[in-house]
Amino acid sequence: MNDVHQQKTFKLTIEYDGTPFAGWQIQPNQITVQGEIQKALSTLLNHPMTVTASGRTDAGVHAMGQCAHFHASTRLGSGDIQRGLNSLIKSPIVIHEVRRMPSGFHARYDVRSKTYHYHILNRPAPCAVGRNYLWHIPQRLDTDIMSQCCRLMTGTHDFKSFEGAGSPRSHTVRTLFDVGIIRGEGLEQDRLVFHFKGNGFLRYMVRNLVGTLVRAGRRKLTPERVTQILHARDRRIAPATAPPQGLFLMQVRYHASSAPPHCSD
Amino acid sequence: MNDVHQQKTFKLTIEYDGTPFAGWQIQPNQITVQGEIQKALSTLLNHPMTVTASGRTDAGVHAMGQCAHFHASTRLGSGDIQRGLNSLIKSPIVIHEVRRMPSGFHARYDVRSKTYHYHILNRPAPCAVGRNYLWHIPQRLDTDIMSQCCRLMTGTHDFKSFEGAGSPRSHTVRTLFDVGIIRGEGLEQDRLVFHFKGNGFLRYMVRNLVGTLVRAGRRKLTPERVTQILHARDRRIAPATAPPQGLFLMQVRYHASSAPPHCSD
Repeated sequence: MNDVHQQKTFKLTIEYDGTPFAGWQIQPNQITVQGEIQKALSTLLNHPMTVTASGRTDAGVHAMGQCAHFHASTRLGSGDIQRGLNSLIKSPIVIHEVRRMPSGFHARYDVRSKTYHYHILNRPAPCAVGRNYLWHIPQRLDTDIMSQCCRLMTGTHDFKSFEGAGSPRSHTVRTLFDVGIIRGEGLEQDRLVFHFKGNGFLRYMVRNLVGTLVRAGRRKLTPERVTQILHARDRRIAPATAPPQGLFLMQVRYHASSAPPHCSD
Repeated sequence: MNDVHQQKTFKLTIEYDGTPFAGWQIQPNQITVQGEIQKALSTLLNHPMTVTASGRTDAGVHAMGQCAHFHASTRLGSGDIQRGLNSLIKSPIVIHEVRRMPSGFHARYDVRSKTYHYHILNRPAPCAVGRNYLWHIPQRLDTDIMSQCCRLMTGTHDFKSFEGAGSPRSHTVRTLFDVGIIRGEGLEQDRLVFHFKGNGFLRYMVRNLVGTLVRAGRRKLTPERVTQILHARDRRIAPATAPPQGLFLMQVRYHASSAPPHCSD
């Protein structure tokens, strides 16, 4: 019977539609992703539970592959927990995977990389379909200039100019492994998707980078000016933040040491 | 003042999110796309108006480029009508274009081709994001087999086996110019989009073809069997209809004679 009381660590991989939520983080009198998952998990395990994510997402931001961990003393296996959560949660949250992890695993501290996508609809007419999943830009966007700016952002930089106000970090240097833009083809050529893969992101950083990329695409900023903004380490000179609903947290990857080969259920 | 009473013909190009509507066609006590547009147009022109589409779409089916026409005696130009409709319509309908046409133009009879897309999410886990815009298939789909079946469907055939019950047409031969499938890449490889371009479509035809393609992709039907079903001209032997929410009417094209070069506003 002892194993019931042994603390186990589990990792959740989570998809959610951010539209109805006041973001990831639990808040009183608000519907949040963390709140919904904790409520279901507490019911399932018959004990008040806390889950810790790889990072917060803001109200209206979506996730295809958010990750979180929790500790629990339970005999339930990963598959039982997954099925239990998916049947208890009624809001647009789906648990893609539950995985037993070594006890030291931490969903935020052990992140190796995160990938975000940002969806834009670029055409004069507003949108009827998928309003909750994109940012509508009526002015023509120059993809070549935006690609050039994506290349400038790639690499290791101090991203202080792109940090949201109100939650300063002591350390604002981050590495972006890959920043790019893909335009849809054929009947979808008015769709643009920015992608960002990095070892970490400051608060509002992706949305601030997208705000700047779109200004450059509208030819209101030159690539040289984007470099200046990046070097200035001053949020006040960077363009406005892009709205939340175009943003998707696509994937979180962890250091290999977080997942030893013989981690049984 | 005479020109006020001259009947003019206009073409509308329309996007709508099918989710909240009981389909295109106006019906008592139901919210329909035709009903919403006619209500706004009647208010704008101060006269009861009727609009005629390229064809109906069913409840839950979306359109990125539905077309319709109407006749009106008005001094308003195309741009005025577009702006007026877009400001009067509050539901998820956007008028992309209003265009003056020659008086003989008919949005249904003059169709040269229509293009539909059908979106599938192919992975074990259900979906949280975009539930209203795709069909979730948890079983693995074989893209090669489905591509082979797409090629079988291309060309001129009697599609009676793929016609919905309840609205038989005397003539069930249609030509599909292009049928294919595209799988997403990278983090979107669980997304599949079927595309169909043809000179006309029977009721439920795209959804019935998709239902058959998915059965083939699940290896429940061989390409040879798909050919047999096509030749049988019998709806009862074809697989079930795919659900509406994955279907998008992308584009309607008209014969060049419908749009003479000097058609002023």
